[in-house]
Amino acid sequence: MKKIRIAVLGYHGCMPTQLFGIADVLRIAADIAQTPDIQVQVHTVALGDGEVNLAGGIGIKLKRPRGQFDVLVIPGMETSRAVRWPARLARLTPEINYIQQAFSRGTQLASICVGAFLLGEAGLLDGRTATTAWLFARNLAERYPHSRINADAMLVEDSGVITTGAVSSTFDLALHLAQRYYGAAVAATTARAALLQHQRASQAPFIDVSMYAPAEPSFSLSVSRWLEKRIAEPYDLARLAQAFHVSPRTMLRRVKQETAETPLGLLQRARVEKAKQLLLKTNLSVGRITAAVGYQDQVSFGRLFAQAIGNTPTAFRRQFRTMQIPHAR
Amino acid sequence: MKKIRIAVLGYHGCMPTQLFGIADVLRIAADIAQTPDIQVQVHTVALGDGEVNLAGGIGIKLKRPRGQFDVLVIPGMETSRAVRWPARLARLTPEINYIQQAFSRGTQLASICVGAFLLGEAGLLDGRTATTAWLFARNLAERYPHSRINADAMLVEDSGVITTGAVSSTFDLALHLAQRYYGAAVAATTARAALLQHQRASQAPFIDVSMYAPAEPSFSLSVSRWLEKRIAEPYDLARLAQAFHVSPRTMLRRVKQETAETPLGLLQRARVEKAKQLLLKTNLSVGRITAAVGYQDQVSFGRLFAQAIGNTPTAFRRQFRTMQIPHAR
Repeated sequence: MKKIRIAVLGYHGCMPTQLFGIADVLRIAADIAQTPDIQVQVHTVALGDGEVNLAGGIGIKLKRPRGQFDVLVIPGMETSRAVRWPARLARLTPEINYIQQAFSRGTQLASICVGAFLLGEAGLLDGRTATTAWLFARNLAERYPHSRINADAMLVEDSGVITTGAVSSTFDLALHLAQRYYGAAVAATTARAALLQHQRASQAPFIDVSMYAPAEPSFSLSVSRWLEKRIAEPYDLARLAQAFHVSPRTMLRRVKQETAETPLGLLQRARVEKAKQLLLKTNLSVGRITAAVGYQDQVSFGRLFAQAIGNTPTAFRRQFRTMQIPHAR
Repeated sequence: MKKIRIAVLGYHGCMPTQLFGIADVLRIAADIAQTPDIQVQVHTVALGDGEVNLAGGIGIKLKRPRGQFDVLVIPGMETSRAVRWPARLARLTPEINYIQQAFSRGTQLASICVGAFLLGEAGLLDGRTATTAWLFARNLAERYPHSRINADAMLVEDSGVITTGAVSSTFDLALHLAQRYYGAAVAATTARAALLQHQRASQAPFIDVSMYAPAEPSFSLSVSRWLEKRIAEPYDLARLAQAFHVSPRTMLRRVKQETAETPLGLLQRARVEKAKQLLLKTNLSVGRITAAVGYQDQVSFGRLFAQAIGNTPTAFRRQFRTMQIPHAR
């Protein structure tokens, strides 16, 4: 019989649903799989004396980790937009050291939500692509500049390190592990039993840029603001450069330097964001919204939107506004 | 300042994500709402000495409930298709009595997943419409025949009693409460921060009838089987009645008695289920699938499907098969 040992690492302030969600879903998967040849054990553990105060204030006593694990899962902690990361992470030094040791002994790592900051602190995001809760992706990218942070992704696996998106990506990780150990059919059935969508690929439909803390003033931010004010007008690099008293070449270089994008890329991003707001908060037709964000052609804009969000404007609106109430039995 | 007191009732075998999920999401909502005039407290409590063994085997010490609560939430327990409900519920007599007393003192009740069985045992589903995890809806309906069980619903509120669907409907309940106490905008923002879909209306897209335990042989089940074998053929009541050696009138009466449906209703349900399987597991076009389940006209079938599932066949396929990977930043 093949035995898989997964540890979930509890620590002061970690969120209970993230601490327990992996085990809860994997038990449902095991019940569905009924595979006597494979046993997936989830150990919920903590360092020190094992006493942990969960986010929300409840204390719990967990076992210390013993032996070698196949996967070590780092749940996220409760946080807010005003969190001071250095102070917050300094208190988690023993956990960060344990993560480093586990990885060097061949354990695969997986973080949920802002659990990614512990991996970053352990130096394990350097040179890797990673994600985290979209609301904290900028903080992660600033703090670990040698990592490539993809705020849109729901789950990224890169050279032994899995990172996942915000809170409920706990379940995306659980289904990912269920698929790995029990196969796609069991993972899909587990998802149906738990009312979860299997293989969600993207946090992008959920991102609300208005929730980001105000960024430091920067050249590219000023460019973005200027473009947002003229969102319905055609893109004109020469006019933009003139407005900022630089050559088009300098405009392209400086924006690229700060954002790895072109000004047109910034404009397109702003157009998609504006369209998301209008799709959710108004009853304007997709045609009207297309025009409102400066596109002539609904098909081209639909393509841009789908590329950014993973869904057409119509499907996005259908999915994220109130669902239709189904016919009662 | 308005203070709202919500209690979540822990007990032996309850699922941790359901025990803690409400509080976790409501803390995010409170952080977003920043309303000094309203305070929503979530108390995670247990009866007796407060020692509870959670599903998965971890013990935890919770406080005893004290005072009057606005809402009492009953999480679901770990279970399997082979569960023996009478024995399982007999062990929860103190909790069931406490639920009855709380309701009689004016506390609103809310169950998650199979937590509905505790409400049923307390007599509080009688005369009410309710839901539970779709996989256990038949058990609930059999055990509490004076309740109307709607297996399709994600959340039902009826005269002071909220019931919700399977495991992850924990979060639908949490968002429902966030909306009630903080308003729709805060609930929507909370959903985005946690990557949850707000106001999911239906479990129907997740239901997989092949997972139900085999039902007792019954007249209507035989009728369903006969119809399923001829799913692509036009509905013909006279021919159906003849095959079962009864009059059309008797056919209608007996099926109605057992299922509260017509034979055509059973056939339409079977057609929708078959279409769901084909949408998920084949690449057949919606037109081909429409024909395969016996409909001439894609538009009419699309309407039937949307009425049952809350989504068009195309949107259902898009949402529940692997999502498109969005364009990387």
